[in-house]
Amino acid sequence: MKEYIKEIEGGICAPKAFYAAAAAAGIKYQGRTDMALIYSEEPCITAGTFTSNLVKAAPVKWDMRIVENGTAVKAVVVNSGIANAATGEKGMEICDKTAEKMSGLYKGDKYSVLVASTGVIGMQIDPDKICRGCELLFAAKADTKEAASDAAKAIMTTDTHKKEIAVSVKLTDGSVVHIGAMTKGSGMIHPNMCTMLGFVTTDAVIEKKLLQKILKEVVDESFNMISVDGDTSTNDTYVVLANGAAGNAKIDSEGEDLERFKEALMYVSIYLAKQMAGDGEGATALFECHVYNASDREAAKKLAKSVVCSSLCKAAIYGHDSNFGRILCALGYAGTDFDPDKVDLYYESAAGKMKIVENGMGTGYDEEEATKVLSEEAVTVHVDMHAGNAEATAWGCDLSYDYVKINADYRS
Amino acid sequence: MKEYIKEIEGGICAPKAFYAAAAAAGIKYQGRTDMALIYSEEPCITAGTFTSNLVKAAPVKWDMRIVENGTAVKAVVVNSGIANAATGEKGMEICDKTAEKMSGLYKGDKYSVLVASTGVIGMQIDPDKICRGCELLFAAKADTKEAASDAAKAIMTTDTHKKEIAVSVKLTDGSVVHIGAMTKGSGMIHPNMCTMLGFVTTDAVIEKKLLQKILKEVVDESFNMISVDGDTSTNDTYVVLANGAAGNAKIDSEGEDLERFKEALMYVSIYLAKQMAGDGEGATALFECHVYNASDREAAKKLAKSVVCSSLCKAAIYGHDSNFGRILCALGYAGTDFDPDKVDLYYESAAGKMKIVENGMGTGYDEEEATKVLSEEAVTVHVDMHAGNAEATAWGCDLSYDYVKINADYRS
Repeated sequence: MKEYIKEIEGGICAPKAFYAAAAAAGIKYQGRTDMALIYSEEPCITAGTFTSNLVKAAPVKWDMRIVENGTAVKAVVVNSGIANAATGEKGMEICDKTAEKMSGLYKGDKYSVLVASTGVIGMQIDPDKICRGCELLFAAKADTKEAASDAAKAIMTTDTHKKEIAVSVKLTDGSVVHIGAMTKGSGMIHPNMCTMLGFVTTDAVIEKKLLQKILKEVVDESFNMISVDGDTSTNDTYVVLANGAAGNAKIDSEGEDLERFKEALMYVSIYLAKQMAGDGEGATALFECHVYNASDREAAKKLAKSVVCSSLCKAAIYGHDSNFGRILCALGYAGTDFDPDKVDLYYESAAGKMKIVENGMGTGYDEEEATKVLSEEAVTVHVDMHAGNAEATAWGCDLSYDYVKINADYRS
Repeated sequence: MKEYIKEIEGGICAPKAFYAAAAAAGIKYQGRTDMALIYSEEPCITAGTFTSNLVKAAPVKWDMRIVENGTAVKAVVVNSGIANAATGEKGMEICDKTAEKMSGLYKGDKYSVLVASTGVIGMQIDPDKICRGCELLFAAKADTKEAASDAAKAIMTTDTHKKEIAVSVKLTDGSVVHIGAMTKGSGMIHPNMCTMLGFVTTDAVIEKKLLQKILKEVVDESFNMISVDGDTSTNDTYVVLANGAAGNAKIDSEGEDLERFKEALMYVSIYLAKQMAGDGEGATALFECHVYNASDREAAKKLAKSVVCSSLCKAAIYGHDSNFGRILCALGYAGTDFDPDKVDLYYESAAGKMKIVENGMGTGYDEEEATKVLSEEAVTVHVDMHAGNAEATAWGCDLSYDYVKINADYRS
């Protein structure tokens, strides 16, 4: 990590003047919190990336319009349990009602509220429940690390743990800004916005266009490089709210300060992306593929993604089985040209690093040794293409019995 | 089925002057047959389609050259257990040795022998074992349905049953030609040549270029429309041998006779493709997606494939769970434009047919009824796009615990 970035406590409440809350609104789950609020004292500029799926959930449509129009935002209301997707006009009305309810509580405009949903597709949300949830959230909001942590828990679906992080960034003039973030997601996770909700808060003063630009670049290297199951969801959302409360000299041009802020946003996003990949439904291991010496960047990305997306590679990792042929095979159908006879492969984990393939053929390595390396909680496959200078890393997880179990009967 | 096509017995030995045999050569498997021979009394013209994977197994390279050059072929030698992929120069030498051995037995040219392998990638085949296998095969060859059936069994890997079929085709002048075929494949099965080996024999007199042309069209509608796990293998091969023994007036131009022959080849290929999809590793159900009223044919194909390829849809079918949101979601990321608010979905199986989605939203159907329809051995999802006149069908299977089990530890 760069010396000007520091990990700190507080999640989405780490930046100044941000509040969070969680509530049990009984949207679908019982006996747990299922709604979260992010609230800013000051109006925020926003940037966002949303699912590339043609079938977009109602809240995605709602938020895209607000982020595009550039309306100032004060609050984000999130619910888990029901995705509000494939819900037609009624689904849009729920967004409208939620926003109207929340903005009424702080006496603002309804277009200053973003909404986000995650859960089962095709069910309607009960408007009374979500409005009652808004009241609970607004009453409970606090700017503490506990409130941030509660919010990160409330947005979980099949996640096994909450995912949050915060950092401080020192700018060139010595002033300090903060970034906090939380995400959820563990199934339907695939490049082009994994099925995830992600929310970033920052107190930095920054220009909206620049924020949108670096956000896109960051998402391409982080969330768009992870895969759990190849399914791109209807609800994917990653938004940044910047309220300017840090009072730094505005970051309004390319330069060292923008670089530092982007570096910090990248750090936060890659951390959360890896958390999500490693927490893939039923996963027992984080599966990383690092491709280097590739002919160009796009080729490197395609190759790395192809390996972490392959069901056969994922199942082999689950079995701690050094079936390197499957990795070569996945490289071969990645859709980019290369010479298979020049490829070298290595496995690496906490148990060590070993060369498995040289010039496209097995090295005659020790199988027991390989099984040991593959039995760790995080396993990396390094692929040396011997073709150029580009590199890329993608993250996924193994494919286990539990993935099937979770998804064969998710709704009940 | 068209009235000029009739299903008959005999598999690859149904066409005149074709012989088959199986042998236990101990290549990798013990206590079972693992080599097969197809032998024709007369020299054959050939047509073939091969894996699109950049990493091509040695036998694929060997066969591609022979099929392209148009050398007359007399024999195909197949082994299961080891794929002879990622084996470098040594792997090519094995092909050469196998062909030399087999052609020596019938005193022909080594380039009159096609070879094919399926199994684990990255291991070398023992040349002594495969040569001994060639002797056993040549000695055992017979033109009986039993021999054909034994060959279809010998090429299996994780398949749970052999896959073979034969038909007769009556041409316009009343003469009759025959087509026989066998395939293997149940894992690593994905559009663009599933991980499969497939061999078609025919006694028709037909022009090579036309045969290659219709073969490509047929493969695009059959084997390239099935998916088990999204992995495109290094060894995919589907070849046709035509020995001309039927003595019909040569099919050497577009017209009714070529149409009839193509129709029969399509029938045989779709039958085998569905057999393979339904026998996907660990599968408990054949999962068919039929898209109609799509804007164009390519769109229909993409949409149908996207649904049968989705891990989440496949897991839902395994759980007999009517999670229609996942189907809408898979349509949405298929990569083709459409209006989600116009889509209707139906489930169909032996237990009945029911409408699940209308205009992109759930119809409020009976869940128990849906579970009943989804609990059959073959389940079809019909997707009405309300956008045009094109249609396409794709086949896959459900995703079960056993898929993971088989693939977490395939090599041991």
